[in-house]
Amino acid sequence: MKAYQEMNRGELTAERAALQQEFDGYKAKGLKLNMARGKPGADQLALSMPMLDVLNSGSDCKDEGIDCRNYGELTGIPSAKKLFGEVMGVSADEIIIGGSSSLTMMYDCMSRAMLKGVLGSEKPWGKYDKVKFLCPVPGYDRHFTICEFLGIEMINIPLTEWGPDMDLIEKLVAGDETVKGMWCVPKYTNPLGGTYSDEAVRRIAALKPAAKDFRIFWDNAYAVHHVYKDTRLLNILDECKKAGNPNMVYMFGSTSKITFPGAGVGYMAMSKENVEFTAKQLNAQAISWDKLNMLRHVRYFKNADGLRAQMDKHAALLRPKFDAVLKALDSELAGRGAGRWVKPDGGYFVTYIAENGCAKRIVSLCKEAGVVMTNAGATHPYGKDPDDCYIRIAPSFPTPEELSLAMQIFCVSVRLATVEKLLGA
Amino acid sequence: MKAYQEMNRGELTAERAALQQEFDGYKAKGLKLNMARGKPGADQLALSMPMLDVLNSGSDCKDEGIDCRNYGELTGIPSAKKLFGEVMGVSADEIIIGGSSSLTMMYDCMSRAMLKGVLGSEKPWGKYDKVKFLCPVPGYDRHFTICEFLGIEMINIPLTEWGPDMDLIEKLVAGDETVKGMWCVPKYTNPLGGTYSDEAVRRIAALKPAAKDFRIFWDNAYAVHHVYKDTRLLNILDECKKAGNPNMVYMFGSTSKITFPGAGVGYMAMSKENVEFTAKQLNAQAISWDKLNMLRHVRYFKNADGLRAQMDKHAALLRPKFDAVLKALDSELAGRGAGRWVKPDGGYFVTYIAENGCAKRIVSLCKEAGVVMTNAGATHPYGKDPDDCYIRIAPSFPTPEELSLAMQIFCVSVRLATVEKLLGA
Repeated sequence: MKAYQEMNRGELTAERAALQQEFDGYKAKGLKLNMARGKPGADQLALSMPMLDVLNSGSDCKDEGIDCRNYGELTGIPSAKKLFGEVMGVSADEIIIGGSSSLTMMYDCMSRAMLKGVLGSEKPWGKYDKVKFLCPVPGYDRHFTICEFLGIEMINIPLTEWGPDMDLIEKLVAGDETVKGMWCVPKYTNPLGGTYSDEAVRRIAALKPAAKDFRIFWDNAYAVHHVYKDTRLLNILDECKKAGNPNMVYMFGSTSKITFPGAGVGYMAMSKENVEFTAKQLNAQAISWDKLNMLRHVRYFKNADGLRAQMDKHAALLRPKFDAVLKALDSELAGRGAGRWVKPDGGYFVTYIAENGCAKRIVSLCKEAGVVMTNAGATHPYGKDPDDCYIRIAPSFPTPEELSLAMQIFCVSVRLATVEKLLGA
Repeated sequence: MKAYQEMNRGELTAERAALQQEFDGYKAKGLKLNMARGKPGADQLALSMPMLDVLNSGSDCKDEGIDCRNYGELTGIPSAKKLFGEVMGVSADEIIIGGSSSLTMMYDCMSRAMLKGVLGSEKPWGKYDKVKFLCPVPGYDRHFTICEFLGIEMINIPLTEWGPDMDLIEKLVAGDETVKGMWCVPKYTNPLGGTYSDEAVRRIAALKPAAKDFRIFWDNAYAVHHVYKDTRLLNILDECKKAGNPNMVYMFGSTSKITFPGAGVGYMAMSKENVEFTAKQLNAQAISWDKLNMLRHVRYFKNADGLRAQMDKHAALLRPKFDAVLKALDSELAGRGAGRWVKPDGGYFVTYIAENGCAKRIVSLCKEAGVVMTNAGATHPYGKDPDDCYIRIAPSFPTPEELSLAMQIFCVSVRLATVEKLLGA
């Protein structure tokens, strides 16, 4: 097969005409397909339906003597701290169990930091003329939305499958006390799918930031969400302790993609000192979160092994979908000089890296043919991918049939956009 | 019966000795009783247990086609908007259904106002050197905690059973654009138990604040929580519309004291314009709240009448407890010149108004004898009741037997503190 870059103008023009015809054929079908959001599929949701039977009118609803139906226990119930602490690799006094969303907990931590500061802050972050956050890219759009909403300046940090550019990070944090933190999705990164190497984790834990109140927002959203391989990730809190930075990290997680998105349990893990400090701040905003839902989760899973067994079932349902995406990319695009892609070990996404300057056009073509993709640029702060090359593919929600069709359309769109680009159209 | 103020020193000294003996007798029992928090009793929680059967593994979990088990619907599911909109007296597009706590929604609204401003703000509230809130007193301590945490200066406004001092409010809001808002618990006020009169509501709705982004935080926590009488409260949003101030009010409510505290559903009602503005801001902090719990509530109650029927059952359980408190106050304290109290129509509290300068001592004596009361001063901003006279009694959580004993101890403590005060001890 001849790569597009090796074709002459005549060959490219002929290819474009053929692709356009194929594309128009799909377009005529008036399809409505969606590969935009990392939503679990209906088959995955079905896995957790028995959890709805766990608490019923005959239940005692007590956890170590605490009535989960009444006010109290701001930081969560003991059994949930134990279970999710084990999942996060921390002890029960190093975790706060919250409401149904870890994203909301991240926003809350950030907004409290802006309004009041964190443990060790000289003043609230919002009192600086400018506050900056380091953002490994490609990354998760909703992290960037939080920063943008709060007026926090974001700095792009190149990310590979093995972690972010640590030389650059070390340099940036050392020289500027307004660099207050960093976003990380360390395992099965959103959207690349790789996992931070031991070296990357250790270097992050050992950072010596100019800002004494620097915080790593460690969004371990996919801690147990393997698809092909349960990848090893070092425990950042352990590493921070070893490096003398025990309070530098906030770890986040939730059961949104373990049980029910939006109706699961969110949690954040951190040093005991950070837990105590945070609990005092939380006292202004809540009396307690939903303890019945915590109890429902604990009694359903029983222990971390129960939770992991459920994750194996999720993986079994997700694998054919990831296979379908990767197979389509391999068969339709390999060798064409039309971008590249990363095979993830787990998580919810496949990243397609287009030829520079093609991503927006590809997403736009897909939309024209009835396939909604995540916006090109969403992988970067301010929605601006400087190379216009990253596209996040989310295979989990469509049915296999929808996915197969959507990927055909995606690959035609990729080829068409790549050829157009080369033709200077 | 002779009032303490009419007794001579000898009579008071004898009374003190007798009371001290009675007090020591209670103290020797080493009791542990609590009348501090407005927590529903176990019998009230039992009312909602059938709600835990409503969703189970056989349920479809769909609301007008929306799968409540997955992400989406940031402002809540349609059926919940309809139900709780009816409870709040607004249409379905004038309400946002949130997580499990209206207190958290109030904190969120306030913190977003500080960080970003509200609809119509020239700048975020946090960008002013000083922001002020009007606080009718006695009031709810957690409202005051939010302001104190966020550095908002609080101004005491005298409150009677019929509403706050409107002359003072009108004057303060008209002359100062840094007066950005006001807390109100309009029905069965916390802790007085009265309800704002039609005139008070109309004057609040017709305020002409210097601040164009003035907001009334209308915490209608006890909208349907009658005990003795279902009191009429005018709809503040309707009145604000009539007065040309449609965006001036945020109304809050939750099912915390309808179903399960902390595991219920919180909501806020406001103009359609405010809903749209708020939803845009919320997009930075959440994808969606717990729609399964919304659905569980809707399917359990079916409609507003179903919810009201449950409130009649709550009232039937609470009434004997309120009776016990009021009976003890009447029989032990009436005619003694030892403070006064307010018979509430509903809500969760009875307010006892001590002789000036006695409240702290009474609460301290109660504690000594094993009865925990809400801290004296908690009814006022910064925990400072200038007359040291307000005590909030929460009858809902103890059993009737505990309550009866706790009230005996309370009344002895009141008498002892009052006599001590007169003796200048």
